[in-house]
Amino acid sequence: MSVKGKYTIGLDYGTNSVRALIVNTATGEEIASAVWEYAHGEVGVILGRDPNLARQHPEDYLKGAELATKQALAAARRNVRGFKPDQIAGLGVDTTGSTPLPVDAQGQPLAFQPRFAKNPAAMAWLWKDHTSVNEAAEITALAAKLRPQYLAKCGGIYSSEWFFSKIFHCLRTAPGVFDTAHSWVELADYVPAALTGTEHPDKLTVGVCAAGHKAMYNDAWGGYPDAKFLSRLHPKLGALRVRLRAQAHTIDRAGGGLTPEWARRTGLASGIPVAVGAFDAHMGAVGAGIGPGTLVKIIGTSTCDILIAPNSKPLADVPGLCGIVNGSVLPGYYGLEAGQSAVGDIFNWLVNYLQPGGPAKGSHEALTAGAAKLRSGESGLLALDWNNGNRTILVDQRLTGLLMGQTLYTTPAEIYRALIEATAFGALTIINQFEKYGVKVKQVVNCGGIAEKSPLVMQIYADVTGRPMKMSRSAQTCALGAAVAAAVVSGAHKNYAAAQKAMTGLKQRDFRPDPAAHQVYQQLYPLYRQLHDAFGIRTWSGNLHNVMKQLIEIRNTARNA
Amino acid sequence: MSVKGKYTIGLDYGTNSVRALIVNTATGEEIASAVWEYAHGEVGVILGRDPNLARQHPEDYLKGAELATKQALAAARRNVRGFKPDQIAGLGVDTTGSTPLPVDAQGQPLAFQPRFAKNPAAMAWLWKDHTSVNEAAEITALAAKLRPQYLAKCGGIYSSEWFFSKIFHCLRTAPGVFDTAHSWVELADYVPAALTGTEHPDKLTVGVCAAGHKAMYNDAWGGYPDAKFLSRLHPKLGALRVRLRAQAHTIDRAGGGLTPEWARRTGLASGIPVAVGAFDAHMGAVGAGIGPGTLVKIIGTSTCDILIAPNSKPLADVPGLCGIVNGSVLPGYYGLEAGQSAVGDIFNWLVNYLQPGGPAKGSHEALTAGAAKLRSGESGLLALDWNNGNRTILVDQRLTGLLMGQTLYTTPAEIYRALIEATAFGALTIINQFEKYGVKVKQVVNCGGIAEKSPLVMQIYADVTGRPMKMSRSAQTCALGAAVAAAVVSGAHKNYAAAQKAMTGLKQRDFRPDPAAHQVYQQLYPLYRQLHDAFGIRTWSGNLHNVMKQLIEIRNTARNA
Repeated sequence: MSVKGKYTIGLDYGTNSVRALIVNTATGEEIASAVWEYAHGEVGVILGRDPNLARQHPEDYLKGAELATKQALAAARRNVRGFKPDQIAGLGVDTTGSTPLPVDAQGQPLAFQPRFAKNPAAMAWLWKDHTSVNEAAEITALAAKLRPQYLAKCGGIYSSEWFFSKIFHCLRTAPGVFDTAHSWVELADYVPAALTGTEHPDKLTVGVCAAGHKAMYNDAWGGYPDAKFLSRLHPKLGALRVRLRAQAHTIDRAGGGLTPEWARRTGLASGIPVAVGAFDAHMGAVGAGIGPGTLVKIIGTSTCDILIAPNSKPLADVPGLCGIVNGSVLPGYYGLEAGQSAVGDIFNWLVNYLQPGGPAKGSHEALTAGAAKLRSGESGLLALDWNNGNRTILVDQRLTGLLMGQTLYTTPAEIYRALIEATAFGALTIINQFEKYGVKVKQVVNCGGIAEKSPLVMQIYADVTGRPMKMSRSAQTCALGAAVAAAVVSGAHKNYAAAQKAMTGLKQRDFRPDPAAHQVYQQLYPLYRQLHDAFGIRTWSGNLHNVMKQLIEIRNTARNA
Repeated sequence: MSVKGKYTIGLDYGTNSVRALIVNTATGEEIASAVWEYAHGEVGVILGRDPNLARQHPEDYLKGAELATKQALAAARRNVRGFKPDQIAGLGVDTTGSTPLPVDAQGQPLAFQPRFAKNPAAMAWLWKDHTSVNEAAEITALAAKLRPQYLAKCGGIYSSEWFFSKIFHCLRTAPGVFDTAHSWVELADYVPAALTGTEHPDKLTVGVCAAGHKAMYNDAWGGYPDAKFLSRLHPKLGALRVRLRAQAHTIDRAGGGLTPEWARRTGLASGIPVAVGAFDAHMGAVGAGIGPGTLVKIIGTSTCDILIAPNSKPLADVPGLCGIVNGSVLPGYYGLEAGQSAVGDIFNWLVNYLQPGGPAKGSHEALTAGAAKLRSGESGLLALDWNNGNRTILVDQRLTGLLMGQTLYTTPAEIYRALIEATAFGALTIINQFEKYGVKVKQVVNCGGIAEKSPLVMQIYADVTGRPMKMSRSAQTCALGAAVAAAVVSGAHKNYAAAQKAMTGLKQRDFRPDPAAHQVYQQLYPLYRQLHDAFGIRTWSGNLHNVMKQLIEIRNTARNA
């Protein structure tokens, strides 16, 4: 084994906090970890009167890098006799996204200027900011007319969560910020740049993960969308085009070395390589040991589904997929990203907003216990998992939740289970879509908070999909992926295959489908799909008269079983 | 004014209790009232392993007549100086239904025989017993083939809640009870018969209300369904036909006089006339002052809607109506009955089964307060009021509830309001159906527990329908209707018009539609109707892609208003 450095560190920027994870590059052992919760807003999220607004203050990113790293190093010293910070050979970063922030001509966030310090438009536009729905629709419409190839790679619809929608919305609603900004940078690129002193637009390294999945970057048409196209949206967007980097990179490259200033602030060695940044889900896929045929599901408040396919062969466009980007996960492979806009968030909604029976009876624990006692199908309920819209395969945020089959005796546990099942049906719809377009799913590896915490969710996913649900060994798969990237760029491993083999793995326990439950879900899924298509697809035509009756039949059969 | 007796008494048999109400026949003043809760089962309802089963023990009916009357008389003595029981000139009875009970050759309930005392099949089959779904379907299918005229008068579908469905199910599942029974009697007929000693099948007086609405009785085809038709269902049902009474009667007739035994048990005068019995909703319509063009809505756990039309003119069959029966409400008029299978029961489901936030936050009071603060449309929610199936206009118990439009922030108060709105949309659907088939609704008078208790429900009904919601003056409109019947049969008034004029009236307060809210509901109702038709009507064909989007638009407009 060619191991040069003994440890690497991964920084994982989530919605509410940043985690630093220190990993043994030879074994994948996670020797220390620390989390720092962002200081601004509501647990790091700055909200506004518009419920669609969600921003973050970039101060939290830098302060978090410093504090989480220092705390993790302190923990490593406690946990491992003889541990020294200079044994850390490299650093990797993953973040939420698309989370772009406006920067000045030096690449510094506008929010660091006193006059913009409290202006939400000058901060980072968090992935879940949904203020830019109209602009997304305009971009989609124009691309459909002039550049259909752009849409073909991002599922046919450009999302309001993405880079140019947000910038365009800023241009319209906060022109002072837009005009002051020299350019915009994704958080996944900003953090490595800040740590390596390469924020300046001429030095900035841009990762292909964010650029490709959220900003229509593709080598096939010369990088970002062309200036003519952007100018048709707005001349100032066209003018911005030349200030974006020409080339985006895969994560086997280092954006630079840690600056002496950051070495001082964190306690790490100066000059260690910092890998090109990527989104949390993509790094999570790396940390879960992704390879061809392996679907990695990162299941948290929302879900990301990542697959890869060799870039040596052409790949069909998969309608409804969030993105197909060469090199966005691993070099040499197309990265395919799908996702569900809400999963844990739907369960949280039931627990936090409805809280049936009060805090004790309405807790996740109590509802899980009740739901686990139910047989598949016996509630007679069916739900759509669209409380936060549908990312894949409909790519439509103007969709909402639905629950049906209620009687006068429907219980909270039945609803909780129906919501879990709905997200499982959504997951199956994504798998089916991949396979329909020729991307075979040979195994499913799960990670993320919900996968870690809820055996019931995992069992239902197995029963609904009819596939074993395997579990990533690490409980911090995203941060582990960033540490794997650090191991590659630091030379601890010669490539990702070697690094993943050494550092990632599966838990012994997996969840196998129960044949009887699977048989029931094979009856329920067509009903879900019928609702899905009726409410979600403009060209659908048909009748729903059968749905309630079949749910009752399935319920009665399940109860008498 | 031709007033002979000063007071009458109405006995109102509900699902959980019986009420006795003593009324001044000259003024309608309700001088005393008493309620006795049934002793058997769960608050009077005997349940089984099958959740569709709901029975009552007839002992409760007789014990209730005695105790409620005695308590009401005692209260009258306390309330009115000089009151004497012999001032009560007559008695009227209304009950739930269809609630048939098997009786022996003397007309005595089988449940009074020790060997049947604990056999649910030998008890009264409560209106909401839904064990007979299959038999109802068979009756409907056979009638559609052989006797379409039967179905034309009961909305096109014979219900599992009704007389012959229940008897047929007893024949199939409890043949020992069926074979022992000489005949079956509706509760509305049994109580007056018991009080007047006319239970014997040769003496029994049958009311046209129960017979017409629930047992396909119609003078046009010689009363009950013919023996040939019933024999095709089962020869034993055909044989039963000859043991049913040939003629059914309107409520301007007395079934007999109170027996000395019942005079002794209750304290009433022996021989006072007891009016022919009718269902609670129909007597409620009388007590609410029903006349041509007046829709009386009795809104409780479920809702009954009653209209009348002169029988001097032919009346079109109204599809989906529960029944059109000559004389079922008032002599000289067709009685038209519609209804919603659950109204208050749906709100109770939310409060009792989901209880969002716990007992205090999830109470009717708290949810009503929260819901009252919301603007029409601003929740973005839309529900179907089918948790207990749909009586009118779909006549389909194999339908279930539906809630849509949920986000990650949907609150319990929003859901509570959406459920109220759903029942209002259901109410509007019934009004529209009446008017579509030529039965004009000139005013709406409401009564019943929900109408009494919830100004919010009444205001939403006004806003949704665009019509003033008037309120019956009496809080005990059903029992008052029975007392009005008693006033007519005792000669206190010469006819119903005179008795209603003297004894019934409206509250001063009514609920007027708010134009702005009505305008919003005019946008929401077509969406409700779209769901209603898509899930409820076999021949519907179309697309629901617009529904979630329009709900979001209505929501956004309402929030910005």
